[in-house]
Amino acid sequence: MHLVCLDLEGVLIPEIWINFAEKTGIEELRLTTRDIPNYSVLMKKRIGILKENNLKLADIQEVIGTMDPIPGAAEFMNNLREKTQVVILSDTFTQFAKPMMKKLSWPTIFCNSLVIDENDCVVDFALRQQDGKRKAVEGFHSMGLKVIAAGDSYNDLTMIRKADAGVLYCPPDNIVQENPDLPVAVNYKQLMMEIDKNRDL
Amino acid sequence: MHLVCLDLEGVLIPEIWINFAEKTGIEELRLTTRDIPNYSVLMKKRIGILKENNLKLADIQEVIGTMDPIPGAAEFMNNLREKTQVVILSDTFTQFAKPMMKKLSWPTIFCNSLVIDENDCVVDFALRQQDGKRKAVEGFHSMGLKVIAAGDSYNDLTMIRKADAGVLYCPPDNIVQENPDLPVAVNYKQLMMEIDKNRDL
Repeated sequence: MHLVCLDLEGVLIPEIWINFAEKTGIEELRLTTRDIPNYSVLMKKRIGILKENNLKLADIQEVIGTMDPIPGAAEFMNNLREKTQVVILSDTFTQFAKPMMKKLSWPTIFCNSLVIDENDCVVDFALRQQDGKRKAVEGFHSMGLKVIAAGDSYNDLTMIRKADAGVLYCPPDNIVQENPDLPVAVNYKQLMMEIDKNRDL
Repeated sequence: MHLVCLDLEGVLIPEIWINFAEKTGIEELRLTTRDIPNYSVLMKKRIGILKENNLKLADIQEVIGTMDPIPGAAEFMNNLREKTQVVILSDTFTQFAKPMMKKLSWPTIFCNSLVIDENDCVVDFALRQQDGKRKAVEGFHSMGLKVIAAGDSYNDLTMIRKADAGVLYCPPDNIVQENPDLPVAVNYKQLMMEIDKNRDL
């Protein structure tokens, strides 16, 4: 039995923080791990910015609710879920993902969580686990499943390398150059072809 | 992060083989592990019966397509998937489950597979793994997930016991008597209450 593990941001939906920064006009929220390499420090900074701007979880979810999946993503997911099993592996937070999962007809997603206080404010975050995408593939292997994985970023490479087959989806040039052995798909039709090719594994 | 693992037959949909026997009028297909305790022997017997009756996969899927989920199951699943993550763990076969998964809006399911030949005939079956429900819970634990499990049968007990919280759903009396410490739910409202109760784990 096969399972497809997909990254979320950049594959099915736009980058949440960048789009959230645009929608709210809060430029500081554009900071990424390129600016602040330590993820924990970056997240604490973001949580501080949310607080300064008096943005509660409901406000954030409302803004995210105005975003849409990447054109074609919903149809791709519908087709894929009719063929095989799919679990989204993401570094985003359950509470941010929710409005997008609704638009994708509630696929299964394993990701991190925000800690919300009694006033609906974001006060902290909880990682599911360190290197969670790779460990998820290992966990699925322990269940007797063959895994096909696709993602676009550095944080997807351990998942893709651990999987039985992997695909880079719309990756930046440097990732392609550094991983010349991995197939690349630049649209959903190509991604589906790469997945179909590996369903006989 | 939480994950709910649900048994399929008896919890969300009727027993497939029994209903299939009724729909087709083939009484012999009512045989269960109570009649032939060795599952592998039973499955080979069933595959033989399908062949004798010239039932191809498409015919079987058509009959299964006329069955419906248990009343209330689709709504229960929709509500549950908005709240938390769900994976169905079943001993049925992907090809049998498919028409039912469509009616439940394609939840994720890990189950066994039938081996189909080039003439669309069932020729064999492949287990995902031995004791696959328990091993799936162990795999999910290795991913940092807390598991709440619900099922109705003996083959669900190892999954329920391995999970962080477990519920018996509409179980036969002997299972209740032999497992007096496990909570019992007899409708979806009670099942949802038991799940909600454990989402703070």
